[in-house]
Amino acid sequence: MPTDVPTPSLIRDSVLVDPDAVRILDRRRFPFSRTWVTCRTVEEVAVAIEEMVTQSSGPLFAAAGGMVLAARVADGGAAGGSREAVLAEAARRLRATRPTNNGIREAVSAILEAAAAPLESGDALVPVVEEAARAVGDRYLQRSRRLGEHAAALLSDGDTVLTHCWGESYVTETVAACLRAGKRISMICTETRPYLQGARLTAESLAEMGVEVSVVTDGMPAHLMSRGDISALITAADRVTMDGHVVNKIGTLQLALAAHAFDVPYTALVQAPDEHAPDAASVPLEDRDGDEVLFLSGQRTASERAVGIYPAFDVTPPRFISAIATDRGRFAPRDLRSYASAPAADLTLKAGERSWM
Amino acid sequence: MPTDVPTPSLIRDSVLVDPDAVRILDRRRFPFSRTWVTCRTVEEVAVAIEEMVTQSSGPLFAAAGGMVLAARVADGGAAGGSREAVLAEAARRLRATRPTNNGIREAVSAILEAAAAPLESGDALVPVVEEAARAVGDRYLQRSRRLGEHAAALLSDGDTVLTHCWGESYVTETVAACLRAGKRISMICTETRPYLQGARLTAESLAEMGVEVSVVTDGMPAHLMSRGDISALITAADRVTMDGHVVNKIGTLQLALAAHAFDVPYTALVQAPDEHAPDAASVPLEDRDGDEVLFLSGQRTASERAVGIYPAFDVTPPRFISAIATDRGRFAPRDLRSYASAPAADLTLKAGERSWM
Repeated sequence: MPTDVPTPSLIRDSVLVDPDAVRILDRRRFPFSRTWVTCRTVEEVAVAIEEMVTQSSGPLFAAAGGMVLAARVADGGAAGGSREAVLAEAARRLRATRPTNNGIREAVSAILEAAAAPLESGDALVPVVEEAARAVGDRYLQRSRRLGEHAAALLSDGDTVLTHCWGESYVTETVAACLRAGKRISMICTETRPYLQGARLTAESLAEMGVEVSVVTDGMPAHLMSRGDISALITAADRVTMDGHVVNKIGTLQLALAAHAFDVPYTALVQAPDEHAPDAASVPLEDRDGDEVLFLSGQRTASERAVGIYPAFDVTPPRFISAIATDRGRFAPRDLRSYASAPAADLTLKAGERSWM
Repeated sequence: MPTDVPTPSLIRDSVLVDPDAVRILDRRRFPFSRTWVTCRTVEEVAVAIEEMVTQSSGPLFAAAGGMVLAARVADGGAAGGSREAVLAEAARRLRATRPTNNGIREAVSAILEAAAAPLESGDALVPVVEEAARAVGDRYLQRSRRLGEHAAALLSDGDTVLTHCWGESYVTETVAACLRAGKRISMICTETRPYLQGARLTAESLAEMGVEVSVVTDGMPAHLMSRGDISALITAADRVTMDGHVVNKIGTLQLALAAHAFDVPYTALVQAPDEHAPDAASVPLEDRDGDEVLFLSGQRTASERAVGIYPAFDVTPPRFISAIATDRGRFAPRDLRSYASAPAADLTLKAGERSWM
């Protein structure tokens, strides 16, 4: 039974906090080229986030790295303002990159809170900020690991599992938990147009873990389900509302409908439901520039006479969802209020587990 | 009320039977370049069909053109064998290009039948074969036109209609019938990976007809339906079985499921149900090379570690289909036996309608 599952490079090397810079793996080109964008200043980190060098949980780690850069500047004394002002300005700039990204907000807030004591006492900021950055990243990954263990319990040896887009550590930890438990599964990834996250990021990462991976176009899954080729559907969720709606990358709804029609269980993965989102109406859905669906890698793919439509997210109602797997266990989509009263997950690193930085 | 609807160039100029050659519009590059493959011999026509220069109904017209080339050779007397042998060999070669293409079989058979009299009498073949080629192509287009009129009756002024892949004259005639009836509709095309027929062929053709056209990725339609943005789904059918199953380009099933979930009517378009296909099990479904989903225009789009899966067609069961529109009218998917006893469509060209060659 395998116990050592390799961490995919997209997770392991996503953001590197080096002595001279923060380096961010460029997901726009991965895996066709593995290059890191070097950010020597908070401003460069912010621009990299804005330019989508990294996405999903990547900005959390990048923002944490950015705050470490700010602490170094503050401690170095070369900045124009006070140490407090340097950290506050870094926090403001990083938060402004993607105002709706919870990961950035979480990382920045945790670090500012930890920095309060050394700012007050005059002690060095760097060790405290580094420790806080390490803690917020590790906490994120540990929550994904717990979530993955709960989700993996729903999968069986021999399953063929469909996933959509790039569900990052939620999906890789689910697969890792299967492998640790000795369950051999194979994975099918939708390519996820227009940016091909499934074909590029998910397929490469799962293959790095030693899993057999297939890619299909976004229109094929229902047919594969109809002929019995898919055992389960799992996707990450960008947001799960308290009444059991899953907000996720466009295309998820269509897959959930197909899974429901052919009796394939659909499990959505999220660390926790969003207690601030009572229902789907409370979640703003981003509509992106329609032109983005008319191109692939800068090459026009559609008639010049057509316009594009690009709703970036869709909403899957609870009746099409079998379970929500969280860091505290699995819940029925209509029973998410139970999350708050469930025992909190143990998020301490186990023997042999490494910190992200 | 508009009465003159432009015929899209993909239909009008698909196959040109010129004095020196048959020219076949290259659909692999359309609309980014408009080029014709020049075929001076039956062999060149056959190779063009095999290399997918044209598809859907294109091979019917190309095969008809190929038989005209053969008649010219036979009448010219330069061929090695008898006129009969020249025609028979051309028929054999053209039929062998795509053994399951009904259009090629139909064109070749009709032309061979018409050629029997001049072969017997010694009269010139060319005028008779040209007339038969003209008739078989016109008959095909007229049947599509009747089908389109029946389908258009299900659409209303102001509708936004979703379609998938390239439904060629079935879809363009449906839209033309709407426009002739003064109904303004807008169309949404799925891009239809991996070959982008929707984004390229359908979007360009419908826009040429003066319709407002949008393109979405193959994963977006369910979301648009869930927010009420789509009035109807129409697709061509490669085959409709007598028990009401629609065999069509992969992706159709997923759209039909979404339409059913959100109460959007789905009409499948076919000239006639296939009386030789009692059920879905009697229709062989092509699985194509999985590598085809891993590339776009020769550029790798997926991880090198992944394999592709490419089922080319899927099967939509009758419970997800609202109506089948044929050249003899609309039928419930469970009532296709009625097609045989319905009055045959009048297929004569009306005043102002032009022959295809």
